[in-house]
Amino acid sequence: MATKTLNVGMIGYGFMGRAHSNAYKQVGQFFPSDYRVVLKAVCARDAAKARAFADQWGYESVETDWKALVARPDIDAVDICTPNNLHAEIALAAAAAGKMILCEKPLSMTAADGKVMVETVEKAGVANMVWYNYRRIPAVTLCKRLIDEGRLGKVFHYRAQFLQDWTIKADLPQGGQGLWRLDVAAAGSGVSGDLLAHCIDTAVWLNGPLKSVCAMTETFVTERLHTLTGKVEPVGIDDACIFMGRFANGSLANFESTRYARGHKAAYTFEINGEDMSLRWDLHDLHRLEVFDYTDDAKIRGWKSVHVTDNSPDHPYMDKWWVPGLAVGYDVSFTHQVADFLAGLESGTPAGPTFRDAYETQLILDAVLASAKSRQWVDVGPG
Amino acid sequence: MATKTLNVGMIGYGFMGRAHSNAYKQVGQFFPSDYRVVLKAVCARDAAKARAFADQWGYESVETDWKALVARPDIDAVDICTPNNLHAEIALAAAAAGKMILCEKPLSMTAADGKVMVETVEKAGVANMVWYNYRRIPAVTLCKRLIDEGRLGKVFHYRAQFLQDWTIKADLPQGGQGLWRLDVAAAGSGVSGDLLAHCIDTAVWLNGPLKSVCAMTETFVTERLHTLTGKVEPVGIDDACIFMGRFANGSLANFESTRYARGHKAAYTFEINGEDMSLRWDLHDLHRLEVFDYTDDAKIRGWKSVHVTDNSPDHPYMDKWWVPGLAVGYDVSFTHQVADFLAGLESGTPAGPTFRDAYETQLILDAVLASAKSRQWVDVGPG
Amino acid sequence: MATKTLNVGMIGYGFMGRAHSNAYKQVGQFFPSDYRVVLKAVCARDAAKARAFADQWGYESVETDWKALVARPDIDAVDICTPNNLHAEIALAAAAAGKMILCEKPLSMTAADGKVMVETVEKAGVANMVWYNYRRIPAVTLCKRLIDEGRLGKVFHYRAQFLQDWTIKADLPQGGQGLWRLDVAAAGSGVSGDLLAHCIDTAVWLNGPLKSVCAMTETFVTERLHTLTGKVEPVGIDDACIFMGRFANGSLANFESTRYARGHKAAYTFEINGEDMSLRWDLHDLHRLEVFDYTDDAKIRGWKSVHVTDNSPDHPYMDKWWVPGLAVGYDVSFTHQVADFLAGLESGTPAGPTFRDAYETQLILDAVLASAKSRQWVDVGPG
Amino acid sequence: MATKTLNVGMIGYGFMGRAHSNAYKQVGQFFPSDYRVVLKAVCARDAAKARAFADQWGYESVETDWKALVARPDIDAVDICTPNNLHAEIALAAAAAGKMILCEKPLSMTAADGKVMVETVEKAGVANMVWYNYRRIPAVTLCKRLIDEGRLGKVFHYRAQFLQDWTIKADLPQGGQGLWRLDVAAAGSGVSGDLLAHCIDTAVWLNGPLKSVCAMTETFVTERLHTLTGKVEPVGIDDACIFMGRFANGSLANFESTRYARGHKAAYTFEINGEDMSLRWDLHDLHRLEVFDYTDDAKIRGWKSVHVTDNSPDHPYMDKWWVPGLAVGYDVSFTHQVADFLAGLESGTPAGPTFRDAYETQLILDAVLASAKSRQWVDVGPG
Repeated sequence: MATKTLNVGMIGYGFMGRAHSNAYKQVGQFFPSDYRVVLKAVCARDAAKARAFADQWGYESVETDWKALVARPDIDAVDICTPNNLHAEIALAAAAAGKMILCEKPLSMTAADGKVMVETVEKAGVANMVWYNYRRIPAVTLCKRLIDEGRLGKVFHYRAQFLQDWTIKADLPQGGQGLWRLDVAAAGSGVSGDLLAHCIDTAVWLNGPLKSVCAMTETFVTERLHTLTGKVEPVGIDDACIFMGRFANGSLANFESTRYARGHKAAYTFEINGEDMSLRWDLHDLHRLEVFDYTDDAKIRGWKSVHVTDNSPDHPYMDKWWVPGLAVGYDVSFTHQVADFLAGLESGTPAGPTFRDAYETQLILDAVLASAKSRQWVDVGPG
Repeated sequence: MATKTLNVGMIGYGFMGRAHSNAYKQVGQFFPSDYRVVLKAVCARDAAKARAFADQWGYESVETDWKALVARPDIDAVDICTPNNLHAEIALAAAAAGKMILCEKPLSMTAADGKVMVETVEKAGVANMVWYNYRRIPAVTLCKRLIDEGRLGKVFHYRAQFLQDWTIKADLPQGGQGLWRLDVAAAGSGVSGDLLAHCIDTAVWLNGPLKSVCAMTETFVTERLHTLTGKVEPVGIDDACIFMGRFANGSLANFESTRYARGHKAAYTFEINGEDMSLRWDLHDLHRLEVFDYTDDAKIRGWKSVHVTDNSPDHPYMDKWWVPGLAVGYDVSFTHQVADFLAGLESGTPAGPTFRDAYETQLILDAVLASAKSRQWVDVGPG
Repeated sequence: MATKTLNVGMIGYGFMGRAHSNAYKQVGQFFPSDYRVVLKAVCARDAAKARAFADQWGYESVETDWKALVARPDIDAVDICTPNNLHAEIALAAAAAGKMILCEKPLSMTAADGKVMVETVEKAGVANMVWYNYRRIPAVTLCKRLIDEGRLGKVFHYRAQFLQDWTIKADLPQGGQGLWRLDVAAAGSGVSGDLLAHCIDTAVWLNGPLKSVCAMTETFVTERLHTLTGKVEPVGIDDACIFMGRFANGSLANFESTRYARGHKAAYTFEINGEDMSLRWDLHDLHRLEVFDYTDDAKIRGWKSVHVTDNSPDHPYMDKWWVPGLAVGYDVSFTHQVADFLAGLESGTPAGPTFRDAYETQLILDAVLASAKSRQWVDVGPG
Repeated sequence: MATKTLNVGMIGYGFMGRAHSNAYKQVGQFFPSDYRVVLKAVCARDAAKARAFADQWGYESVETDWKALVARPDIDAVDICTPNNLHAEIALAAAAAGKMILCEKPLSMTAADGKVMVETVEKAGVANMVWYNYRRIPAVTLCKRLIDEGRLGKVFHYRAQFLQDWTIKADLPQGGQGLWRLDVAAAGSGVSGDLLAHCIDTAVWLNGPLKSVCAMTETFVTERLHTLTGKVEPVGIDDACIFMGRFANGSLANFESTRYARGHKAAYTFEINGEDMSLRWDLHDLHRLEVFDYTDDAKIRGWKSVHVTDNSPDHPYMDKWWVPGLAVGYDVSFTHQVADFLAGLESGTPAGPTFRDAYETQLILDAVLASAKSRQWVDVGPG
């Protein structure tokens, strides 16, 4: 039974604010820990909205100035759910205040910002984590285990795509609640930071460092009404981004993301081809892992669709949920991430992805965007 | 914001106890209502286990005698999560005490028992509901809407299967925690009451009454160690059950359930074939609905895989969750059921399935088991 | 290289006439044999149509009276592609004339007719075969091999369906070219003889004898214009048929066929559940076999989709076709059947299904139709 | 009925020699035409093998010198099925002899060679065609029709992959029968000319010209035994090739091909995303087309799996085959190509892809290989 508390202060209350809050409320029932999460405060500029959110989700108090929240002595951990352009400033302040930090992805607007964030949290010695939640989908975690067991042999290829279609409308504005992802000032980039960042995080986790990339980007709709200025403004984000690359292990990378692939809602897929085994996964059917095992009897060799729902140690996290065959949803990836964060606090081994892990993704994103601009191959590196 | 409370007392704390508790805790954040659910008490014979469960799930108090729980004036609603053989007795007592009742499925051991339960709750005028949760999977609810819109035209066929493989082991005992489903004294029947009951509830809801059935059952393993007696005892449940039948609308029924279909974990599937549209669904991919629309352009007519995850009124319940493409899990079917129950309290129109609805399923189950025994066609009826 | 000839005389020239002819023409290039098939004559009542067919397909001559064809000394084998009501008479005459016989399925209108046919061909000592072609789809043949290798362990369930939707039109006439399958006088029965016959043939081949059955049938459209009488006449065929049953090995049978399942063109599917392995197949994706192997590592156990296209002995027949990944079509099932028939002539071991094998299917069909009529369980037997 | 003959002389007798021969033999029965194809002669250096092939496939005569075959006055059309390095020389000679030419893909070793070939056949005025057979898979042809009908609206993305795994063996030699595809001297390139050529042909046909590309290639196994020299020699082909690009219509290209993707046999897939409709196809299930139609009712919008097997004009070519639901195989793509070639002769409108069409693919392949070498973006062009 929990003997310690972890008082969380959350900044932001949008889609991610809800997903994180649900995880905080749910984790204790499914993943018992020494720590009990307490929803201490939520912060939003609009006091009424903050209050409504706090009431609905059970936050004990509200703040309208994030600096006030960060300064509160009763807050142990700050959860940053704001648009990307505020991540760095808040994180630096939180670290200075000695708070643990759970930051939404991507870590930062640029790798340079990210570097400062990493240095700061490490110097401050505060626990830190970035919400690359897809690592904690059980089927994805199972991939990691299979790879770590050496089942794939030499890897030849890694492919990932994140396809959406929700911005195929000329009259969709940029900026404002729910639409800041189209505003380059708030988001930093388009699909690269929003979607490819996920693909890259998983890829590096599963297949190791990416050494070099060559990218192209496209903005299909170049002007949109901006809700903050009330005027039609140039669109600064990338609507689509494709890149090729090479991993340190010699395998070839093919990544693509777009918001203009009609028919796809959130089609994050990846596939890794090893000499002895290949794996593929699709967020649209997140409870399944496709496995091709070349060591199988040739007569009946084929792609297996593994329904990753056994409540046994065979299937990561699933021994805590229901019975075989009953799938969990997208939301549990956050619950698992909180569970692992708490377990990291208990064990002293921080759960990744840490800021440092996420900085690696920023370096790759910087290289991707630089390549798209220069139309040249670019080495990934700390410069 | 919630202005009233609903104090729940839950009897039992197994798999269903967890599923219901998760729903009670989650419903307020996603489906705001006048009612706030309070986890007032949980009851189990073993005081230590009851206490541990209460701690983990946030129940305010514990009871070790269900009669004490039913008698408590601070309990508004009794949730019956016990093995089937206790449903009737508890429900009658709860009704007598004027409590609302949320009862696990199947309603009762026999239709005769069920009849008394229906009469009692209706006479007592207490809100009552049975946890046939699959109605509230968004893809299944969408089926209901499409059918109610008249899109299918004349219906010719309805097929359902619920296939599992977890009892294919001679050394699996009967009786005891998690294994009472193999003990006929506790469960009443095997796959028919456990799995076919779900299939029948959905079928009648979607396609109307079943008039007559012809069934066969089989018990593959005829003796198992009984954990209560410590001896090998005859197995009284059905391991598999197949039945044909005829619906009142003239369509043909083909139902099957088994725990001996290797490779299937919880493969509840159904398909309905109408003149103009056919629908099929599979619990293993619960977020998808397969639709064949004969009114489509012939050139590109085919089964559509609808990813029922749009956060819009198009997809039942999903406007309350995440963004398109992000699937919810099995657990939300319970959350939706509580949400609808609360909405029913608010509106005065009770959410189904009520005890009366579930009694219809008991009549069909009685006919199925009678037919399997007599090897004759049996009419469904109140006898 | 072929040193002998097999002179074929075909009676009928419809869909099956084309499928058989294509096989005869193709077999020599892919399955070299001692025998070269010669398309000696085709017979149809309409001389012009017979001539046109002969020209298109390369038959050397035509006949308009099947008795004349059967009597020709230059014919070695008679291929019966007529409506079902002519099978028996032609077969008896062909056997009397000492011809080999390749007869379309189902063997006969009734089991009684079939019995006479079996006795006659066996007494005459002529090679005989029935065109249950689905046995020779490579994925289906692979099932047979896996079962014969004992991989499934004890079998619990066998399920088969053959779903179509092409007769869901009140204005479709019965009788005449392409529509004799709706005319009970020509077809003998509806979906049972046409579609379930295939399901039964495969089932008995894979899983052994069926002992008893209980069936229901339905005729959704009870009157149709008859093209021969020009009048609206009662429909005598079954539009749908469901039956349950028990195999001699103790496993349970669930079979269904219909022409009223909107969205299905020729959805012949079967599934067999064994203790250690399950298999399923779908004619709509005939080049794939789904395999669940319980002996797999639990962590990555799942249904495998085996693409049965390796040009190696691992995949039956496929070493004779293309390269891995390139699927063959429906048509090759006939080519394989001819190849096996010729191989049987060479080896002296007749390729099944022989008339005797197909008679077993007739016995089951008789039992199914009798059960549907009597609404009782019926034992399968030579009665 | 056929009134003219087309005497074919085929050079080569490997995998493609068999595929073409099957098509020549089959076309007349399914696609009646004014022209009857006569298998006049087959040419191979090894007389015994040529004779054996001729016997098996029904060629009237054999040649061992392709020049002799080209010179024969009784040959109307020369079919070039040799390794790539002989295409140009034979084609030029055949054109000089006034023969029609059906040439295996890719057209040539280089675009420069291809240019001469185009100029030569056009000057000679001989009918010419390249065997990019996948255009004639019915599902692929259906794509073309849907696109030509304007159903897609503005196109944003085109993706294609051709994944194989058959060369993941260090001990596979290069050169010799069946293995010349690994020998750069015979093949010109690796996966780019062998597999990407197909992807490019389809893409340009469906989506118009590609303007610029940026590519990477990889050779995973750099030395292999050469069967001609008997020594281990450097491998000159590309084992994998990825390229990004831009189509003239503004859409983005992402292409990849490899022989090192474990689990894929011949996984040619493509997807095109338009504003109003998206389409995707997979050679592994070649009889299906996946269609997402944004104009569908939002409630039941999803990817449709169209089983392209209706024997009606709705599904290209399929009215000539069987009945709905019965799939054709890979082989029919060649039968359809011959049918269209003959129809082109009748109508005077040549069936594509002509040499000129295929030259466009060579230009793109040259740009891809140049880009992989220079690590720069390269414009596609006649230079």
